[in-house]
Amino acid sequence: MAKKNAFYAQSGGVTAVINASACGVIEAARRHSDQIGTVYAGRNGIIGALTEALIDTSTLSDEDVAALRHTPGGAFGSCRYKLKDIDAHRAQYERLIEVFKAHNIGYFFYNGGNDSADTCLKVSKLAETMGYPLQAIHVPKTVDNDLPVTDNCPGFGSVAKYIAISTREAALDIASMCATSTKVFILEVMGRHAGWIAGAGGLAAEKEGDAPHLIIFPEIAFDRQKVMAKIDQSVKDHGYCVIVVSEGARYEEGTFLADAGSVDAFGHKQLGGVAPTLAGMVREDLGYKYHWAVADYLQRAARHIASETDVQQAYAVGQKAVELALAGRNSVMPTIVREESETYQWHVGEVALSDVANVEKFMPRDYITEDGFGISDAGRAYLQPLIQGECIPPFKNGMPVYVELEHQLVERKLPDFEV
Amino acid sequence: MAKKNAFYAQSGGVTAVINASACGVIEAARRHSDQIGTVYAGRNGIIGALTEALIDTSTLSDEDVAALRHTPGGAFGSCRYKLKDIDAHRAQYERLIEVFKAHNIGYFFYNGGNDSADTCLKVSKLAETMGYPLQAIHVPKTVDNDLPVTDNCPGFGSVAKYIAISTREAALDIASMCATSTKVFILEVMGRHAGWIAGAGGLAAEKEGDAPHLIIFPEIAFDRQKVMAKIDQSVKDHGYCVIVVSEGARYEEGTFLADAGSVDAFGHKQLGGVAPTLAGMVREDLGYKYHWAVADYLQRAARHIASETDVQQAYAVGQKAVELALAGRNSVMPTIVREESETYQWHVGEVALSDVANVEKFMPRDYITEDGFGISDAGRAYLQPLIQGECIPPFKNGMPVYVELEHQLVERKLPDFEV
Repeated sequence: MAKKNAFYAQSGGVTAVINASACGVIEAARRHSDQIGTVYAGRNGIIGALTEALIDTSTLSDEDVAALRHTPGGAFGSCRYKLKDIDAHRAQYERLIEVFKAHNIGYFFYNGGNDSADTCLKVSKLAETMGYPLQAIHVPKTVDNDLPVTDNCPGFGSVAKYIAISTREAALDIASMCATSTKVFILEVMGRHAGWIAGAGGLAAEKEGDAPHLIIFPEIAFDRQKVMAKIDQSVKDHGYCVIVVSEGARYEEGTFLADAGSVDAFGHKQLGGVAPTLAGMVREDLGYKYHWAVADYLQRAARHIASETDVQQAYAVGQKAVELALAGRNSVMPTIVREESETYQWHVGEVALSDVANVEKFMPRDYITEDGFGISDAGRAYLQPLIQGECIPPFKNGMPVYVELEHQLVERKLPDFEV
Repeated sequence: MAKKNAFYAQSGGVTAVINASACGVIEAARRHSDQIGTVYAGRNGIIGALTEALIDTSTLSDEDVAALRHTPGGAFGSCRYKLKDIDAHRAQYERLIEVFKAHNIGYFFYNGGNDSADTCLKVSKLAETMGYPLQAIHVPKTVDNDLPVTDNCPGFGSVAKYIAISTREAALDIASMCATSTKVFILEVMGRHAGWIAGAGGLAAEKEGDAPHLIIFPEIAFDRQKVMAKIDQSVKDHGYCVIVVSEGARYEEGTFLADAGSVDAFGHKQLGGVAPTLAGMVREDLGYKYHWAVADYLQRAARHIASETDVQQAYAVGQKAVELALAGRNSVMPTIVREESETYQWHVGEVALSDVANVEKFMPRDYITEDGFGISDAGRAYLQPLIQGECIPPFKNGMPVYVELEHQLVERKLPDFEV
């Protein structure tokens, strides 16, 4: 049987370690060059497959591939582009298969979150229906940590570490000055539906009274009166109050605290501005001097302080995807499996994509304290191992050295296709 | 002559390395314990002197003092509290002298920015007038980098490094996704009057076309039409546009882009929200999808990625302050002197406080590109050495280990004093 090539694409919001997964895929494929041909990377994700914009990774030096492990962002380009409904827009899916056929692609590695898991499954099914031999493997990635089955998602541990450290550092600043200056500090973090990232802020605290004094989760309905009372109490008890608030904070009836009004390509509302909204409430209800920060992309790009555990796991799921493909698996996703042991141990397992696609995993209620404003011991026990270890990138001239790849495109063989 | 004690206080906004200066003062004093008695630190800055809340640093272990070198925030508490006009409020100044006299304090080390340099000078003058033997030494500190004479200010290099790295990292994120998602990213940074911090964002770029594509300085009048045209051009040329904007960005006539309306203790307007304001303009004028981040306290507390050069300089000015005091100097400030050499070399010099107090140093026009939107080669040559070297703190459990000091207060000898 002739060797098949592989297609790899990055999907959705990028992370500090998605390129480590790419590195895992490409290095594993190179180690198995007797069984796998070239790895083609989609330029700008799945759009690269649709438009036949395929980056030939065989032109990359081993050094450049290795450098992906410590480079944030999406080195091949990612996209917010969801394939349309398969029944109504079958042409899109058929185009993918055509492109795969034209370039002798037998392996489809799709590196993303919930939406891309669903796409990956659909592509796999269609290939089967069309009788085209394709093994579709989803490589998990999302800072939101909301994929089911897998213990955690590569990308999350590094955001968690960044938010925990930033919260601790900012808290020392505020504690220094609260006698005469800022008394309330608000840090807005990502997490549209699930409070995992906000919860990670809780790792900044080591003992009673430590910041953050208040975490606002999307999973807990926002009650202005209760929140303001808690802030007031914290200022009275400690002299200041540090708050980590999720961008997805919402009222009982579901309305987001701050709704920017615009909608992204997946139809999700684009959020932002919860911190200033909450700050306005503090001013109105309590009158304390406040400051607020919005970490936005800084949090998911902060490779300089990535979690070593996260980097290892991101690499491992990429590598495992190739191994699963070579073992003949299809429509599966590598997972992180937490072992039952005294110290944190993990290995890579697998799950059928049908069990993953379109399922979101929220913070379990028992990971949150009873009052809804902090993480419980169970939550801490879950989160703490994920931020273990530092994995500092190389530096030159005071700056981290990140690789920028030249995108050598493969010659096209098919007519244009409109996306 | 009996040994005199020393008083040390932190003033104004704290930094990632102000405690390194405290470490320099205390360690130098301990090395000269034959000439200097106890170092008393003001609890919450100068307020600690006025209220006789003096922290006895002799109770601190050598290990705890050494740990100050890698701990952000103000370990003894700082304050936003400016001594009132000396002619109208002489009592405040006299109280300071009384407290110093009561505790046999002959050395006054004041660690702060412009306002505290002025206070330090006034205290020195009044002591002289009152015939009280006091040597007042100002220890420079400000993330704003706006103190005159000294080549740069301890605290700035670390913020500069954080902003440069964050800009580079976020830019990789945006570049990955601009084809289908965010095209304009805005990072708001500190710097009320001077654009040094915003300028440091320019260090993220290494070659033509690299982010940031636009820096908005307080020194350059904001012209909405020109700025929007530049953003639009950048999106057309590169697919995206990364903007670093100073909180002090202002129109020709002096109005700040975003004016929170409240005023801090020094009478300065409290700013914030330039990023969302600018984002609103992008939406209205260009319609591009945008994201924005406000680094706020995260930038000046980010000890985890401090500049090694900055840490060394912060320590050195603290140490030098003690040496100057022992050499009989008064009303002076240690300065960072950049040597004329091929590679960056520096030493600590000194300047009379009368040449420093109430003078602000802005970005020279020739450090900014002709179009006003970037840093020139001269600006880069000035900034680059200040972010050299990493000085990673110790980590435990995935988190940096920062010291929290127990504040052992000295027994009071004087009646209460209202501040």
